[in-house]
Formats: sequence, C-alpha cells, structure tokens
Amino acid sequence: MIHPAELIQRKRDGGELEAGELAELVLGYARGDVPDYQMAAFCMAIYFRGLSSAETFALTDAMIRSGATIDLGSALGRKVVDKHSTGGVGDKTSIAVGPIVAACGVPFGKMSGRGLGHTGGTLDKLESIPGFRVELGLDEFVAQVREIGLAIVGQSADLVPADKRLYALRDVTATVDNLSLIAASIMSKKIAAGADAIVLDVKVGDGAFMKSVEDAQALAEMMIELGDRAGREVVCLLTDMDQPLGRAVGNALEIREALETLRGQGPPDFTDLVLDAAGRLLALSDLGVDDAEGRRRAERAVADGSALRAYESWIRAQGGDPDEEALPAAPVVRPVPAPRDGYVAELGAGAIGLAALRLSAGRATKDDPIDHAVGIRCLCKRGDAVEEGAPLAEVHARDESTAGTAAAEVAAAYRIDAEAPRARPLLIEVVHG
Amino acid sequence: MIHPAELIQRKRDGGELEAGELAELVLGYARGDVPDYQMAAFCMAIYFRGLSSAETFALTDAMIRSGATIDLGSALGRKVVDKHSTGGVGDKTSIAVGPIVAACGVPFGKMSGRGLGHTGGTLDKLESIPGFRVELGLDEFVAQVREIGLAIVGQSADLVPADKRLYALRDVTATVDNLSLIAASIMSKKIAAGADAIVLDVKVGDGAFMKSVEDAQALAEMMIELGDRAGREVVCLLTDMDQPLGRAVGNALEIREALETLRGQGPPDFTDLVLDAAGRLLALSDLGVDDAEGRRRAERAVADGSALRAYESWIRAQGGDPDEEALPAAPVVRPVPAPRDGYVAELGAGAIGLAALRLSAGRATKDDPIDHAVGIRCLCKRGDAVEEGAPLAEVHARDESTAGTAAAEVAAAYRIDAEAPRARPLLIEVVHG
Repeated sequence: MIHPAELIQRKRDGGELEAGELAELVLGYARGDVPDYQMAAFCMAIYFRGLSSAETFALTDAMIRSGATIDLGSALGRKVVDKHSTGGVGDKTSIAVGPIVAACGVPFGKMSGRGLGHTGGTLDKLESIPGFRVELGLDEFVAQVREIGLAIVGQSADLVPADKRLYALRDVTATVDNLSLIAASIMSKKIAAGADAIVLDVKVGDGAFMKSVEDAQALAEMMIELGDRAGREVVCLLTDMDQPLGRAVGNALEIREALETLRGQGPPDFTDLVLDAAGRLLALSDLGVDDAEGRRRAERAVADGSALRAYESWIRAQGGDPDEEALPAAPVVRPVPAPRDGYVAELGAGAIGLAALRLSAGRATKDDPIDHAVGIRCLCKRGDAVEEGAPLAEVHARDESTAGTAAAEVAAAYRIDAEAPRARPLLIEVVHG
Repeated sequence: MIHPAELIQRKRDGGELEAGELAELVLGYARGDVPDYQMAAFCMAIYFRGLSSAETFALTDAMIRSGATIDLGSALGRKVVDKHSTGGVGDKTSIAVGPIVAACGVPFGKMSGRGLGHTGGTLDKLESIPGFRVELGLDEFVAQVREIGLAIVGQSADLVPADKRLYALRDVTATVDNLSLIAASIMSKKIAAGADAIVLDVKVGDGAFMKSVEDAQALAEMMIELGDRAGREVVCLLTDMDQPLGRAVGNALEIREALETLRGQGPPDFTDLVLDAAGRLLALSDLGVDDAEGRRRAERAVADGSALRAYESWIRAQGGDPDEEALPAAPVVRPVPAPRDGYVAELGAGAIGLAALRLSAGRATKDDPIDHAVGIRCLCKRGDAVEEGAPLAEVHARDESTAGTAAAEVAAAYRIDAEAPRARPLLIEVVHG
C-alpha cells in the first residue's frame, strides 16, 4: 500500500520515486482510489522538481497499463507508422501525409485528439467533411488499416484512460507545461495505439506550446528515449510555428488546403513539410528505402494522383464525402488589405490562432461548439512582398460583425516592414534516436 | 470572476496575487465553488514560491471572513487575553495558565483544536476529565468568560471554516510546512476568536513542527505582523521542544501534572514556562503591570490557592469533575530502568511522542479513538543524574503487551552519557512586535 501524501512529499523535497510507486499512484488515480487533489499537488511538485528519465518512463508505462493497448504490427503482419504533431496554428499535416504514405503501400494508423484553443484538432478538421465518422471501435480501426491502409480516428476511451483524466486535471491546475508530463502524455498514447515507428512534429514558436528551440529539443530527446525504451523508432522534426503553417487556418479551410496539396497545388511551406514527413515515414517503414528515396516516392504519389485516390477511399471508408464541393463554406469572406507597401516581417501565429478561435473555429472550453466553415486564409506569409490595399489575408466568417472584429485582429497580426526579413526555414532541426 | 487556474499559474511563476483575488479564491473555496484539486495545486505552488507579507495578510483576512467572528473585548468591556502553542510533546501549558490568569482577574477565552499525531490536543486532554464539555456555543463561550473569567472550548465550526477545510487538504497533500500557510492558519483562528492580546508559544526542536530556531523566528515575526495588522498585540515565546515539556505525556497524566503545577508542585521546567506565560499575559492585559509584576502576581495566585480554585470553578462550569481522583488511570504502570549510571544527555521528544501515540494517547488519523488514561511519565529529564536500574520513566498502558513495546521505545529515546550535558534553557527567545 502506498501513501500518496508521502510520495507527494518525497517529490516535493526533490527525491525520486520507484517505478512501482509511480505505477501504484497512476493506476490508483485511474481507478479513482487516489483523489484529484493529491494528483494535483503531485503534478505541481513535478512542475518544480521535474522527473528523472527513469521516472518519466515509469509514468508513461503506468499510463499505458491503465487501459487497453493495440498491437497493430502483429494484427497486420506489417510495420505500421504514425505521425503526430504537438499542435500549432494551421497544422493539417496528418490529413495530407496519411494518404501519401498509404498510397506508397505503407499502413498508416493514427489516433488523434480534439483541439482546445486556437483552431480545432485533426478530428475537428475531419468532422467538417459531411458524414465523416471519427469514432471507430478498436476492431474497426484495425480492420480499416488492414483493408485500405489508412485510418485516422478519435482517441479510444479504452486506451490510456489515466492520461485522459490527468490531462483534464493538469489543464485546470496550471500543471500542463512540464516536459516530462507532456512527453509521457504524448508517448503513452502513441505507444498504446500500436504504431512501430513514429514521426513527431514538435512545433516551436509563438503559436506553439514550446516557445524555445531548447525546450523543443529537450522534449524531442525525451520522447525519443521513451519510444526507444518501448521498442518504437521515433524521429522528431522541430518545425517553425512563429507563423501559421500553410495559408488556411480553420477546419473546412484546412481540409481544402490538404486537398490542394494532395493535388500538388498546396502552399510551398506546407507542401514541403508534408513531403518531408511522408518521406521519413516511408524510410521508417518496412519498404527498405532511405529518406531521399522516401521523399521521391511521396512526390511521385502526389504527381500520379495515387495520394488523392487514397484520400478519397479513406474518407469514404469512414463514411465521409470526399468531394471538395461538399465542404461547408462561410457566408462572409472579407479581405484584409495591406496598410502599406513592403514585406511581411512577422505574421503572429498566436494572434491568428486567437482570431480564428474568436470566429468559433476553435474552442475556448471543451464544451464549446465549433463552426467548421469559418477561419482565416493568410494569403501573404513572412517574406512576401505586399502592395498597399492588396489583400494580406481573407477572413471567412459567419456574419459581418464577427468578420469585422477578426479582420482587425488579423491586420494587427501582420507586421509590414520596408525591408525583406531574413529567411527562416520551416524545418529547424531533425532529432534522431 | 476570477479564474483559479490563472491565479495558480501566476503564483507558480513567482508572481503576486492581489488581496481581492486571494479573497475570491479562499471564499470560493469555503463555499465549495473552487475545488480541492485547484486549492491543492495552489498550496503546492505556495510551498515553492512563498507568499509575500501582503499576500499572507490577505489570506488570513479572507479566512477570517469565511465565517463568524467574535468581539470578546466589546462583549465583556474588558481586554481579553489568549495563549496558543504551535504544539509539542507534553504541552499542557494552557490548562495551567488559564486558571492563573483568571485568578488574577484577567478574562481568558481560548478556542482550541484536537491533536493529530503525538499526544492529543488541549481539547483531548480536557476530555479526560469526566463530564467536561468542550463543545460550547459561541454565546455560551462568551457568557462563561464574562461570568467566571475563563473558558477553553473547541474551535467553533462557525469560525474560520476555510481554515478547517484547507488544513485537512494540506494534511494529505504535503503542503503543511509553509510558514505563511501556518501563520495564516493560526492567526486567522486567534483573530476570529476575539482576544485582544495573545501570547504564542512557538515550539522549536525535535518534537515540534519548527525544527530550527531560524524557522521559529520567521514564523514568530510573521504572526506578530499579522496580529499587528489586525490590531492585536502578540508576543511570541520560542521554547525548546527537543525534550518533552514537564514530565507527563498523555491526556489524563497531563491534567494531573497541570493540577500539581497549580498546587505549586509541578516539574520545574513546566512551572517556569507556565508562570512566565501567565505573567506576560497579565502584562498584556488591562491590569497595567509589567512582565515582572505579572510574574509575581501569577506566583501569588498559585501560592494562595486562588489559581486552583479558578481551575475548579472553570471545570465545573463546563460540566466536569475537578477532583483529581475522578481522572482515569491506566491499569498497567511499568517502569523503564536506566541501563547504566550517568546523565541524561538526550530525551527525544519525537520518539516519546510516537511511543505515546502507539499507546493510543494520540491519533494517527483523525478518526482514531484516544485512550485518555495511557501515556508516559518522564521522571528523568535532560541533565539529570541517573543510576543503573533506577526508573528513567514510567509507561502507563492499557495492557502488558503495549506496555512492553512502549517501554522499549521510551528506553531508546533516552541517551545516557558519562558526562553531564551542557544546560540548555527552555525559553530560547522572546519576540515582541
């Protein structure tokens, strides 16, 4: 029998917990035997004292053991890959990467979450497709990956229930931002969901959770180690989130952009990230190719239309209508004109995300409804030359009033300078195990 | 509307909260609007970041405002004094001080708590007196102080309900030991209970909450400042708790020792502290005397029997039988012999407290029953010369088995050296405002 107060005190005083103690605490919490208030104090002690590498692994392992797990590889007799992003503004990468990877013959099975803040999560974006079902049973999930090579579904409540409870608690007790807790939360879900190899896109910057490259590196190294201890190959891409990814921010708008990209007509920054991530996933797969060959195959799947066909069969398999015309459109589209000639020096991802949130593209609290049609299209990105009066962006809104407010917020998110800014790459660093 | 998560985060990040924000948080918590888990995270953030002087006062003030308050001075038209101890092993000081002060014509009204760990609290000790009622209504409390000049009662649930809830939470979340939270908890109750002047006995050492003189000084200064801001005079005595106070440890045994002391036959260390505290209370009262004259009057009240008579009328007023013979006695009394000739070099208060707790003189958890008859009498104290085989202490137990275990624990609490230890005073320091 553990005494939670003693474990809290030991962590508070800078001590280390045994794996068995952490397991009892986490599993007791998942069962409801350890109350929220003790876990809240424990998380705050972790915020100040941190967790060792061994503790972080024990926590992750205990969270996995709190629920069911899937062994996708054994179920399919193939190596299965997955891709995850720590979340940013305009991040619809998985929706384009999945079909490309599947088109190249590699099974892609992903469980995803809903978004809180900014724009929606991947699930919210997919739900802007009429008819699309995100709630598949575990058996349906596995069967769909086996049959068409691709499924993106909601996080099953059967998997890692401890994380679900703990994340909700951390969210209201100011204990979200600790690298060990973040790494354990992400990796417990990825490991439980069964992929053998994972590409993690760690967003860095103003619109992301990680504000500094140093923090992102530390998180990446921690997640790679957790994957390694669980026998999973993990590659982390550190990518820029000082400005939104691509142009579209908002659920249906982002699906449209993913479709454009699968047709080879996407924005250059987003297209590059999609092809890079897809190429690395192919290199991690059982195809036996390197990153360069993976990237070439990804490019070919876009060029020959097989990626678009994989998208269509995937959307149909989950009950959705893959036709772009079926997506909802906002009744009001208002341009945001450039105030002067010059260059886009900054385009604040955080500010754009917040403007989209206020348009109802995202949720302020977990019960808020989402308007799938609304959002923002950033026609000009950092470094682009602009002319006074020409549109910097478009606001897609439900009505004139919210359009007006959002247009002012979007205008304020842009900084126009006389000089072109120094170019900054989207891909900052690749961290391997 | 405050957002608790934002306030937790600000404190976590080292920021300061406004008085109004702290008040909303504490009052919301007392009402049940702010959940335990947010308060637990907040207390842990306070553990690491501390509270400023202004925040500590705002917290104290909000806790007072969570319930009723008593204005004893106005009710009586007199200056009322109170005495409080931060708690130690064998501390029955208030039970002897109250009657002495009352016998000298100064009203003494005290609300007290129950003990957790070690031996019981003052209430538990008083409840070893057959018939004694500790649960008086606020009106009864005030009336009794008016009529006989003395009442010691249980903390009213109407006073400082926020502290009651918060203390129970801190106890199970490893957030007890923060000086600001301790000071606010003590002073909110003292201020709400209405005394104009308070002597606080801050125990320091192995058997006390404050292990170092520095921490005790810091706590004393904080409590004096809180009293000052609320218009109360506070004097703090820092006293030694490396060894138990007096000889008796255990509820009825301590009542007997208080009675011996009121008869002028108490142990020297305890008698000296009682007379010192009583003298200072008289000096703080409206009698217009200094500490030295206060002490002389206290000595006279013991010598002339008026203190003992005040004790008897007080116990009767609360329904108890003041006759010493009425107190429960343990069936088994076992001596603990000295293992060799020498001097008592150490007598661990913590170890004696724990042995008494195991005999059932105290509570390990708040629902444990107390055996009022059992306990330990430390016949030899630090510095005393002892002879091999002569009794160091007596264990008073319910049966032979618990007596044997306790005797071994008590023996282990004594360290006998060939040389006499350096004398250490009981009263370490007096801290004035």
